[in-house]
Amino acid sequence: MSYLGYRDGDENTPFGEFFDPQMAPLPAHVVEALEHGPQAEPVLPGFDDVAALMDSTVQQTENGYGRLAGGAFQVSVRTDMPGVTPPMWDWWFGWHGSDSRRYKLWHPRAHVCAQWRDGGADVRYVGRTSLVREYLGSADTRAAIQFVEPSLLGLVVPETDVAICARLGSADLPVDVGWLIHHVRPTADGAQMRSRFWMGGRFVAVRRGFGITDRAVAPIAARQLPDPRDLLVHCAQEMNHLAAFLPQLYARMTQTDPPLSV
Amino acid sequence: MSYLGYRDGDENTPFGEFFDPQMAPLPAHVVEALEHGPQAEPVLPGFDDVAALMDSTVQQTENGYGRLAGGAFQVSVRTDMPGVTPPMWDWWFGWHGSDSRRYKLWHPRAHVCAQWRDGGADVRYVGRTSLVREYLGSADTRAAIQFVEPSLLGLVVPETDVAICARLGSADLPVDVGWLIHHVRPTADGAQMRSRFWMGGRFVAVRRGFGITDRAVAPIAARQLPDPRDLLVHCAQEMNHLAAFLPQLYARMTQTDPPLSV
Repeated sequence: MSYLGYRDGDENTPFGEFFDPQMAPLPAHVVEALEHGPQAEPVLPGFDDVAALMDSTVQQTENGYGRLAGGAFQVSVRTDMPGVTPPMWDWWFGWHGSDSRRYKLWHPRAHVCAQWRDGGADVRYVGRTSLVREYLGSADTRAAIQFVEPSLLGLVVPETDVAICARLGSADLPVDVGWLIHHVRPTADGAQMRSRFWMGGRFVAVRRGFGITDRAVAPIAARQLPDPRDLLVHCAQEMNHLAAFLPQLYARMTQTDPPLSV
Repeated sequence: MSYLGYRDGDENTPFGEFFDPQMAPLPAHVVEALEHGPQAEPVLPGFDDVAALMDSTVQQTENGYGRLAGGAFQVSVRTDMPGVTPPMWDWWFGWHGSDSRRYKLWHPRAHVCAQWRDGGADVRYVGRTSLVREYLGSADTRAAIQFVEPSLLGLVVPETDVAICARLGSADLPVDVGWLIHHVRPTADGAQMRSRFWMGGRFVAVRRGFGITDRAVAPIAARQLPDPRDLLVHCAQEMNHLAAFLPQLYARMTQTDPPLSV
């Protein structure tokens, strides 16, 4: 599957009715962050202080992006999700990656295809690599999203919460280029997701087992990097879009027990 | 002092309570200017016609930015300031530059430190050079702001108004890169500031007394230049932020006569 959107018959699944090519406008707090533009490194969340993300203190930049020393960048987005629970996101990350039609529900204007590197079905996500093709802004991107245990990043996740953590890399080259964390916690009327990305610069490395030096691949890796602003928009769009029907999708696919393999 | 924000004890001054890390959203007219993006040179205020700024005619671009011929750029911002008077800004420019804790009140997310090149205290600003470190967008910038008499730029400032004028340069290299004017005039309910920046291109020059040619330093100077959009956002943020408490700060620091050196 190498096209955007649904074509003939793609909608003939138990979840097909959830494909909606219309996406809502960005939330006001995201628009405000885009207006403000790049921020100073010291007011952005530090990768060396990710544990702070687990407490509920509002960080100095909950929505925004900026360049870091050494050529890296950081992006943060908050998504408010009435009616959603943290376990729904745990389910989503295990469920969507085996079928491009599922992956497309999430960002109907930008998601092209997804499959697990192990070729398997939807069982879990931690410890697996999701190979995706998606547009970030206008950039056609092929990424390897390697989900890891939150403890690998030193996170102690409260029982009530879910933290999706991944090493971000190229699907074509043995190069990793960044990290992501989506921390989901319950709120009075649903859940809140705090997304954090650190990419480029010191977050670039050749995958273990390859002989080339990190330095040699840095210029290649840099070409894999999205524009920070585009990444902020993409993340805000996909999270808000999915959150609007995730409770219904989750109920349909888990409680009514349809065949998971379609 | 080389950090952003206030730390232990920084707030223990007669003005410490005015430090507020929360900044308001940008005014609607600034957001509109950002949405419109770069403008045509002929609709931007010309440096050769700065005298026109002193009359009250609305200029064709009161808020906006654009590239000029020869690699320069121009930025304009209007700030509406209820309750503020022009003399308060005259006082502010003389007062803030001797103490980083004062400078940080102005833009708590971007101002790192400030001192006068002459090492002196707060007496006046015209004829002095303020050495500052601040973030413009994500760019860590060290600038030398050399305040001059408005008459140097050919301005005839009405009695009721204040015009803050400066040559902008590098704090590290003997290179100047631009000019700024903040023209403040009274309005029915307070004051209005019209800020104007001209930077890069023909506004770059080696400071007098140095032998290198202007041409040789141009590439170095170019690296000192902010993104015009980031400069517009920064100026709008700091002017609106300070204007919200400048009347109270001014009253506290001048009428109640606390020690000015803390």
